[in-house]
Amino acid sequence: MLRTRLTERLGLRHPIIGAPMAFAAGGRLAAAISDAGALGLIGGGYGDADWLTREFDVAGNRPVGCGFITWSLRRQPAILDVALARNPKAIFLSFDDPAPFAARIKSRGVLLICQIQTRKDALRALNCGADIIVAQGSEAGGHGEMRGTFALIPEVADVIANHSPDVLLCAAGGVADGRGIAAALMLGADGVVMGSRFWASQEANVSARMHAVAVGATGDDTVRSQVMDLARKLDWPSRYTARVLKNRFIERWQGREEELRAAADEVAPKYQRAWTEGDPDESNTFVGEVVGLIDQIEPVGKIVDRMVGDAARIIDCASQHLDGIRTT
Amino acid sequence: MLRTRLTERLGLRHPIIGAPMAFAAGGRLAAAISDAGALGLIGGGYGDADWLTREFDVAGNRPVGCGFITWSLRRQPAILDVALARNPKAIFLSFDDPAPFAARIKSRGVLLICQIQTRKDALRALNCGADIIVAQGSEAGGHGEMRGTFALIPEVADVIANHSPDVLLCAAGGVADGRGIAAALMLGADGVVMGSRFWASQEANVSARMHAVAVGATGDDTVRSQVMDLARKLDWPSRYTARVLKNRFIERWQGREEELRAAADEVAPKYQRAWTEGDPDESNTFVGEVVGLIDQIEPVGKIVDRMVGDAARIIDCASQHLDGIRTT
Repeated sequence: MLRTRLTERLGLRHPIIGAPMAFAAGGRLAAAISDAGALGLIGGGYGDADWLTREFDVAGNRPVGCGFITWSLRRQPAILDVALARNPKAIFLSFDDPAPFAARIKSRGVLLICQIQTRKDALRALNCGADIIVAQGSEAGGHGEMRGTFALIPEVADVIANHSPDVLLCAAGGVADGRGIAAALMLGADGVVMGSRFWASQEANVSARMHAVAVGATGDDTVRSQVMDLARKLDWPSRYTARVLKNRFIERWQGREEELRAAADEVAPKYQRAWTEGDPDESNTFVGEVVGLIDQIEPVGKIVDRMVGDAARIIDCASQHLDGIRTT
Repeated sequence: MLRTRLTERLGLRHPIIGAPMAFAAGGRLAAAISDAGALGLIGGGYGDADWLTREFDVAGNRPVGCGFITWSLRRQPAILDVALARNPKAIFLSFDDPAPFAARIKSRGVLLICQIQTRKDALRALNCGADIIVAQGSEAGGHGEMRGTFALIPEVADVIANHSPDVLLCAAGGVADGRGIAAALMLGADGVVMGSRFWASQEANVSARMHAVAVGATGDDTVRSQVMDLARKLDWPSRYTARVLKNRFIERWQGREEELRAAADEVAPKYQRAWTEGDPDESNTFVGEVVGLIDQIEPVGKIVDRMVGDAARIIDCASQHLDGIRTT
């Protein structure tokens, strides 16, 4: 299928990593992704040790890794030990400076994956000794920043080539099918990190109602916002917003952030209840712009097999349309 | 080199169209792009008939087309006749509904290219009889919207395939080198529309000072804003913002839009003077996130030749990594 530095270095069949989505990416999803020949990651999120232990148990002895929200990890650094004790294949850090944790992770011989949103972040991650840089564009679901995937990937590829050429690069944000993988490789990535497409799988921890609205949505129907974080009283650094489907909750609060901040004590329990119930109207459905490419909820294995098969066919087909230049 | 439906349908050597950038894309740039085997477009912009006539004269008898800002064209529709009288190879409409002009363009046998920023826009353009849809992502320099190139292209490709499969698709926003063309083709495009990379050419109408700051900038240094339109007293519909380099002018006014609106009579002549002088501090440098991929100002022919050569090599190289074949 597709051989890249990522498949070789990590011993994967496919150059795909499952995004460690908080809540959605539990042990079942991570295990299914690793079983499919990619690398599954449990979404350590805001750091619940009991949840994390349970999800690692669910994943069993599969080679899975774990992701954390870096600014949140800084407030409860002990949760990293819970993950490291399970011999994870990789630790994935995103959102804020990975420096306080890099040495602990690397000294255990665990792969350090750093997700970044800007060129400047990429340099910081390289200086921390990241083994893999994940360049995440604004298209992505959930938290992120404003640079687009299409121009960010080649710019970061150039930074890596000039700075630390052995470091691998994955593209995140906008990848949901074989076209996306093929394009990411062309832009200079060694592989992809995929969130929404795995979120929309049978193995994800996602409510049937949220799955249903996502299947019916187009890419025009998402928006970046901070209101869900204000409603959850989460102290996200202001540079990060989260991409979600537009819904009643967003319509009510988007643009009224200061009011929401003031009303948070009242709104928070309602939001939490709606979230627990998987309510797509009064909490939020965290998906990226690729939601417009997703029209059914499928098993992970089927998603992966179709993607890599399509990518190989697309690349092969394009190579048939080249005139003149053959490098071999 | 790269053969696609676009090269075949338009009789081009390369699947590349030059963005009709207002001011920057005059007859000299359009001619150079067409001479290089791509399709050059004069940037009709806000509709100055004398300027347009002069620039068509500069392009001479080359097969070039012309672009207009649709909402502005609606206010002075006669300018379209100035362009149509020159037998343009194509008319490129962007920003607002192309319906009022589509029939006039198509009845002259001129190709109708519609640039869109959302899936919904794409459907509208197809219903107007567009021959080519240009899906422009937020990475792009100058005016645009918020959807990212990477997920927008495949979604629009699917819309076209289901609705009007003979219509061609080009990707805009984020394309500046061979990696970008190759990736756009993988995502389902038949070619690319390129702005910033041609803006950064010797043939563009751009001041040396703006070129110099762009060469030194990274992709992190751009921002979407409306302040330049307020300062120019241009009535852009609020959904559109323009991507420019961050500078003193942006720092002064970004986030103070209402104040700027009130001060526009005072600010406008100063802005206009700075713009005329090509001042990168007190007017604006309109470039996309790909500015981080551009490190010199070159002739168009050299840019195009390198891009298509690189794209062909990248695709060929990727095809060698399929099905377990290893060449490195």
